[in-house]
Amino acid sequence: MGEVKLIGSRMSLFCSRIEWALKIKGVSYDYLEEDLRNKSPTLVKYNPVHKKVPVLIHEDKPIAESLVILEYIDEIWKDNPLLPQDPYDRAFARFWAKFVDEKVLFGSFEACKAQSGEEKEKAIESAQESLAFLEKQIEGKKFFGGERIGYLDLVTGWIPLWLGVMEEVGEMKLLPAEKFPFLHKWSINIIDVPLIRESIPSRDSLVNYFHASISYLRSLEDSKA
Amino acid sequence: MGEVKLIGSRMSLFCSRIEWALKIKGVSYDYLEEDLRNKSPTLVKYNPVHKKVPVLIHEDKPIAESLVILEYIDEIWKDNPLLPQDPYDRAFARFWAKFVDEKVLFGSFEACKAQSGEEKEKAIESAQESLAFLEKQIEGKKFFGGERIGYLDLVTGWIPLWLGVMEEVGEMKLLPAEKFPFLHKWSINIIDVPLIRESIPSRDSLVNYFHASISYLRSLEDSKA
Repeated sequence: MGEVKLIGSRMSLFCSRIEWALKIKGVSYDYLEEDLRNKSPTLVKYNPVHKKVPVLIHEDKPIAESLVILEYIDEIWKDNPLLPQDPYDRAFARFWAKFVDEKVLFGSFEACKAQSGEEKEKAIESAQESLAFLEKQIEGKKFFGGERIGYLDLVTGWIPLWLGVMEEVGEMKLLPAEKFPFLHKWSINIIDVPLIRESIPSRDSLVNYFHASISYLRSLEDSKA
Repeated sequence: MGEVKLIGSRMSLFCSRIEWALKIKGVSYDYLEEDLRNKSPTLVKYNPVHKKVPVLIHEDKPIAESLVILEYIDEIWKDNPLLPQDPYDRAFARFWAKFVDEKVLFGSFEACKAQSGEEKEKAIESAQESLAFLEKQIEGKKFFGGERIGYLDLVTGWIPLWLGVMEEVGEMKLLPAEKFPFLHKWSINIIDVPLIRESIPSRDSLVNYFHASISYLRSLEDSKA
């Protein structure tokens, strides 16, 4: 099916979802680690618009934006489908994927970054409102995809590791088990899948990365204030 | 194929793209106009997460988010496909659709809303940078979809009317013909398609709507400043 390369960053949850998808499909690929603080000419060449990872390069043609890449992978390599077959179920998965990226992830990161008392409380409340919507969707299911992991599990698959790191670095609790029992159970199920567990960064390296990123962003905001 | 309803707002460009898609597919539907300043229980019931239009209701099952709806329509009604068939071309269309919604549309609206000299200049420059990326994609083509309109044309189809209105209300020029000749030619081509031309609000009503919206948003920002 042609040569496959992935330009990624080990710390990026958007890249992990692509690695998981390629592994589910059994696709061999060359992995090119990108230094996001010193972007390579290769990245700029293949993603001139956003200059961001991940970029999948298939037969020398680049595809950017992780949700777009997941759809592409699912269309090119048909075995072990990621999206469900039924159009309504597909719309459901796509709707919630967008929600996870735009609301859950963004909200969690803002809560991690927030510093002061009231600002922080509001950000946590807002992130938890989004998480509560997601909690309802996973109630009673093993995976979002049903009995096996699918598209929406990959998109949400950052929660078990990355959300915990955001909680630690942001000195807060976003996902208490008693409030989100079904997302907790799902987190255990997903991290129990070998190909997921084996393709995530070490917790220590991610904590260090987030500490550095959050400090940097806060210093930018402080200098503006 | 079951009963189809669309909850929409005549002023919303996200709703127009859905109406265009349904017309291309020859799907009959009931249209429910929503008063966005006084949202109906029907809207809240069918889109409890975002409480936004458009919502497509097919056989009493709701689908929200306009890009998700377009994919759904294309999967349910196969005639006159919106997305291309080739996976790489599909990824291209999806990538640029996301770019149009997140960068071109958002940037144009911010430029419309911006008030002061430097803030306005920067916002215009930023919007034009995004438009320049889009200009390159349409160079030498009749439509983004090739010889006939497709998914990306529908997503970008707000430009001929809505962008002009933003220019008028925001007292600025975003898309001068000499700088963006290909987007201009495309705008003429798209507005020349009867089903597009016949399913857009009147320019006057849209100008009034934008004047009111922008004034409201500016007053909110002024009260925060």
